[in-house]
Amino acid sequence: MTTAPLFASHPHPAAPAEPGAHQTEIDTPALLIDLDALEANMTAVHQRIAAAGLRVRPHGKAHKCPDIAQLQIAAGACGVCCQKASEAEVFAAAGIEDILITNQLVGRAKVDRAARLARQVRLGVCVDDTVQVAQIGEAARRYDARIEVLIEIDIGHGRCGVGTAEAALNLARHVERYAPQLFFGGIHAFRGSAQHMREPEARAAAVAGAVKRVAAIKEALEQAGLPCPTVTGGGTGTYALEADSGIYTEVQPGSYVLMDTDYAANRLAPGTAPLQHALFGLCTVISVHDTHAVLDGGLKAFAVDQGLPRMVMPGWTVKTLSDEHSVVVPDAQAEALHVGDKVRLIPGHCDPTVNLHDWLVAIRQETVVELWPVAARGALF
Amino acid sequence: MTTAPLFASHPHPAAPAEPGAHQTEIDTPALLIDLDALEANMTAVHQRIAAAGLRVRPHGKAHKCPDIAQLQIAAGACGVCCQKASEAEVFAAAGIEDILITNQLVGRAKVDRAARLARQVRLGVCVDDTVQVAQIGEAARRYDARIEVLIEIDIGHGRCGVGTAEAALNLARHVERYAPQLFFGGIHAFRGSAQHMREPEARAAAVAGAVKRVAAIKEALEQAGLPCPTVTGGGTGTYALEADSGIYTEVQPGSYVLMDTDYAANRLAPGTAPLQHALFGLCTVISVHDTHAVLDGGLKAFAVDQGLPRMVMPGWTVKTLSDEHSVVVPDAQAEALHVGDKVRLIPGHCDPTVNLHDWLVAIRQETVVELWPVAARGALF
Repeated sequence: MTTAPLFASHPHPAAPAEPGAHQTEIDTPALLIDLDALEANMTAVHQRIAAAGLRVRPHGKAHKCPDIAQLQIAAGACGVCCQKASEAEVFAAAGIEDILITNQLVGRAKVDRAARLARQVRLGVCVDDTVQVAQIGEAARRYDARIEVLIEIDIGHGRCGVGTAEAALNLARHVERYAPQLFFGGIHAFRGSAQHMREPEARAAAVAGAVKRVAAIKEALEQAGLPCPTVTGGGTGTYALEADSGIYTEVQPGSYVLMDTDYAANRLAPGTAPLQHALFGLCTVISVHDTHAVLDGGLKAFAVDQGLPRMVMPGWTVKTLSDEHSVVVPDAQAEALHVGDKVRLIPGHCDPTVNLHDWLVAIRQETVVELWPVAARGALF
Repeated sequence: MTTAPLFASHPHPAAPAEPGAHQTEIDTPALLIDLDALEANMTAVHQRIAAAGLRVRPHGKAHKCPDIAQLQIAAGACGVCCQKASEAEVFAAAGIEDILITNQLVGRAKVDRAARLARQVRLGVCVDDTVQVAQIGEAARRYDARIEVLIEIDIGHGRCGVGTAEAALNLARHVERYAPQLFFGGIHAFRGSAQHMREPEARAAAVAGAVKRVAAIKEALEQAGLPCPTVTGGGTGTYALEADSGIYTEVQPGSYVLMDTDYAANRLAPGTAPLQHALFGLCTVISVHDTHAVLDGGLKAFAVDQGLPRMVMPGWTVKTLSDEHSVVVPDAQAEALHVGDKVRLIPGHCDPTVNLHDWLVAIRQETVVELWPVAARGALF
């Protein structure tokens, strides 16, 4: 865990605070991590999944932060997922030894990056097309690397993934052509849209349908002599359902450690532990008017694709965001804000919000404990 | 102009291409700058404003790229604007000598940053509250710096800015208390919402109303012995109106060099030169299905606050973006896409899109000419 600036050779903003500082001393806009909430979220989700006998493989795309990945491993995670070869490099450099890229790598630079990395850590990738298999297979041969390949199954997400047992079988056989550098590991099956269905019954029905499709394809693969030791997928909205599915072997929750307003809007099934907001934007009030106040963070500090951030202070609502400003409006009971006040907000969508920041400020109550670089911020490749 | 990686000490993605490479060799998702279009846009807008006798002070918040700022200065700009003290540092480090921060700086770290910088370059800031004046004034005294202060007038934007001549006068007198370190320079008056009104008549009416309000406040200040040598504001949607206003002395267009789908949707007044799209996202097709294809750039490569990016290839439409993917769908006439194809997209909103990337790939036709660091990417402070 380091407080060294990432950008030493560059006139880049340094870290927004130092350990021991009070919240009011943090430069803004900044992202805070409430450590108590983060730890409680990790414990709740990891224990639930482990109790069902599955591995937890948290998704690093949510936080892009090796410090959080290390805490997740210490709390029982088997490794991490990520979406990009360049993200995998960042996690590997931080000592994470088991990484699954839950995505299709296409292009010489990307597959070579992955193959080089696979000489250093246990690496898996996903495929849904023979072109991807050939590209990663050739790279694995070039670097004499060993890479696990999972077939992605489309279980209703409508994005990547094959839809039939025949296509899965064809792909798995294509993987075998690149043995021993490639080896078939099983199935990746994720349905993003199910994560955000508001009612627990709707999520349960979506996962039940997915499980049925995965089971059929798994059976066809196994009957063809292709066992599937790994069936991986699931997320923050559905992790308990995959844990109890009887077919998944590992679950990939990402947002659960941080939470955002969108996930908080899900109604939970009875017996499911509510997760806490651990991620907060911190902004300074820079301008105050009769009808509104203005904060110093906007679209470059908060992603708005799943809605505006929410003010923690009672009575205040975020009305609009522009590039560098948020306009907040009070109701009749709201306490006044003053120029210089610092206020917390809960981001609408944690993943792309974290990706806008270079630092996470880890706090307990209102005291800074550590500064965590968002080391995979901007790792697009 | 440098191709050195910003993140040499860090396992960060290197530049996505090298000079001389063909577009098909660029790693993705990347942002391309079409130099022919960028140059044409600069010429059209700078000439229009200069012909009316005003200064052009392009807004650096749009591109966050010193290489582009240097081209703008070479094409006649008097300096740049930016929104953050940390952005100003980046532009100053690149040799830009005249910088206006079109924003209210609140907080010790920020005003000290600005005051240190003002010993090195000509620096201006905006205020709408005596608290801001006191903070920047004390910082200027601490560093014995000289800083121009502009009073921000709210001309209908509903964000920052004072609304009355009395408030402006009060603020300008407050500035004088910190003489000689602070000096009153005039008025900043920007209306963001006017930029995106679709009809030229609506934009003209909005600017006419703004000009009337600015003129009244300017007259009151001057009658009180406070001349306003600078009246600055305006943007890509209205620059010709401010140029012809008879009251503005400089104009601050930002998006004009790059353009996006939102600005392109404005209908232009007769005689106004249409601006060209100079900014493109480049993505790789990673997965192809009967109904859709999937690209390797999503919400972490394209800002969506002003709409989804638009495919350049005829017949294809962006349907959804998730964190790392775009799903694109064809019409009946669309040519097929294949895994590995590279496609261009026009971002919905250029400013926050550029802020997601570490590099701009400057091209002519389809050949890479230079790699430009987005040096003020993430400069939030």
